[in-house]
Amino acid sequence: MQSHVLPTFADVEQASRRIASQARLTQLLEAPDLNARTGGRVLIKPEMLQRTGSFKFRGAFNRISQLDADRHPQGVVAFSSGNHAQGVAAAAQLQNLPAVIVMPDDAPAVKRTNTEGYGATVVTYNRRSEDRRAIAESIADERGSVLVPSYDDRHVIAGQGTVGLEFAAEARRRDADLDVLLVPCSGGGLIAGINLAFKAMSPSTEVCVVEPEGFDDHARSLKSGERVANERADGSICDALLSTQPGELTFEINRKCLKGAFVVTDDEVRDAVAYAYRVLKLVVEPGGAVALAALLAGKVDAKGRTVGIVLSGGNIDTDQFCSILRAS
Amino acid sequence: MQSHVLPTFADVEQASRRIASQARLTQLLEAPDLNARTGGRVLIKPEMLQRTGSFKFRGAFNRISQLDADRHPQGVVAFSSGNHAQGVAAAAQLQNLPAVIVMPDDAPAVKRTNTEGYGATVVTYNRRSEDRRAIAESIADERGSVLVPSYDDRHVIAGQGTVGLEFAAEARRRDADLDVLLVPCSGGGLIAGINLAFKAMSPSTEVCVVEPEGFDDHARSLKSGERVANERADGSICDALLSTQPGELTFEINRKCLKGAFVVTDDEVRDAVAYAYRVLKLVVEPGGAVALAALLAGKVDAKGRTVGIVLSGGNIDTDQFCSILRAS
Repeated sequence: MQSHVLPTFADVEQASRRIASQARLTQLLEAPDLNARTGGRVLIKPEMLQRTGSFKFRGAFNRISQLDADRHPQGVVAFSSGNHAQGVAAAAQLQNLPAVIVMPDDAPAVKRTNTEGYGATVVTYNRRSEDRRAIAESIADERGSVLVPSYDDRHVIAGQGTVGLEFAAEARRRDADLDVLLVPCSGGGLIAGINLAFKAMSPSTEVCVVEPEGFDDHARSLKSGERVANERADGSICDALLSTQPGELTFEINRKCLKGAFVVTDDEVRDAVAYAYRVLKLVVEPGGAVALAALLAGKVDAKGRTVGIVLSGGNIDTDQFCSILRAS
Repeated sequence: MQSHVLPTFADVEQASRRIASQARLTQLLEAPDLNARTGGRVLIKPEMLQRTGSFKFRGAFNRISQLDADRHPQGVVAFSSGNHAQGVAAAAQLQNLPAVIVMPDDAPAVKRTNTEGYGATVVTYNRRSEDRRAIAESIADERGSVLVPSYDDRHVIAGQGTVGLEFAAEARRRDADLDVLLVPCSGGGLIAGINLAFKAMSPSTEVCVVEPEGFDDHARSLKSGERVANERADGSICDALLSTQPGELTFEINRKCLKGAFVVTDDEVRDAVAYAYRVLKLVVEPGGAVALAALLAGKVDAKGRTVGIVLSGGNIDTDQFCSILRAS
């Protein structure tokens, strides 16, 4: 499978064909209110409408559908804060393979419940004191199953890249010449895949990363030219974006392609979640809303420009969702 | 404008061209979970993603964009529980025409706020003791403005019919042969327009009406062969579906075309609102969720069939929404 080599645009194109029968081709949305408010044209990729409620199904299915079930009867293992967990569990279920997922004990209940709903076994760990990779690798060794990384993997990156491929293709069909594309980022798999697609399909678009305050490892790594880690392991409401540092493969792509980096606060993210509910009628989780947050907070100048944003997921606990809506 | 004659499919086709630049062509969604749960293939038309958060913008814009602004400087008047209100207000604003909207004093706050947000003046009335039509007609007389009916109007029906035109066309593109289509219903404008489209484009599809318990005037009118009224004016959580009886024009179409009628309880509607949030990641208001409610409650046999449903709107107050989600 050659999972440790850098993916190319051809891998993204292959992934697009491979996932077509199971993933949803989410179509771009445009909201008059958002255009009026920003003074630009905003195109939204609503990945909470993707199977499993986030883009993560794309990469997981692209990876797992290539496994030979006869050679790997013990299936797959993954570690994830919850969206990759659901993607892997659903993809494994479709391939009739067992899945074990290592999740932090403070993950949103909905993410754990859904993961188990797709038939996976969940093992929890403590985000501050335990090493999730070590736990997952030890399970993979014991069971003889395959570890599916959440971002640093050729086929996972290529799968997430289909978000970019679809975005660029549909923008073209709509005669929209994207000036900027804003993408939520944790380990960097989604934005790396998108970069591969945009480099080939829309090279003039400035692809920019958006991260939560305190977890701006990409912003700082881009400045310093090498991968730097975050100081914290928790403390943001963006539970999906708490990776410790950029991935190796992903950063190798991203450091060459990214044109900018934005950081948003928890309050800006809350405003974006409430806006998506009120105006867009979409359920977005905090980590999925950071690109919208950067736009609404005026951090990105959209005036007279065409701006794309990815809403990357919508798996949020009801208590948190309603507390955000009621405070808005 | 000949608004009091029966619309035809040609009117729906014209409406489709007329609204194309301003309305959103909402694309069908399909959810693996819903297919698995019902044993069929379910295609969803998500009209909460329509401009103003409901399908009502279609009919309002189709009607109002045909007004000669020079002849009607005083603009338009409408009465509405809230979604037609927003549709008319937004359409009038786009045409630079003033709008006055007569709304019940118990309408959801979000509907009133949004209506005013589109620049309309809101006048309230008491649903039990006052006649909204009389109030609106008197305002129209005084101001010299044009009354835009919420359903009993050729161009309003034709505009709503674009939901059906788009549904049938996209189903065809997806090789989906719709056996049944479930449509929320109040005065019957949406389903009448849809019937015109389906009679022309997909005549074998059984178009069925779904109404809230206590407001099943269409179900009873279809049985008796003539229009019968509801006994109550309020008492359902489906605030958008509380019309007193079928419209004249709409029933003239619907009584010939409808193939079935389903009634859902408030609790079934709550379940559907919560399901749409949890699984579909969409914000649906109670009245917009009745077709989904009928399906989830097992009132419609979907096994082995292809079923279309319209989610007609998503304008719901946060308190009500969160109370439904927390109880689910």
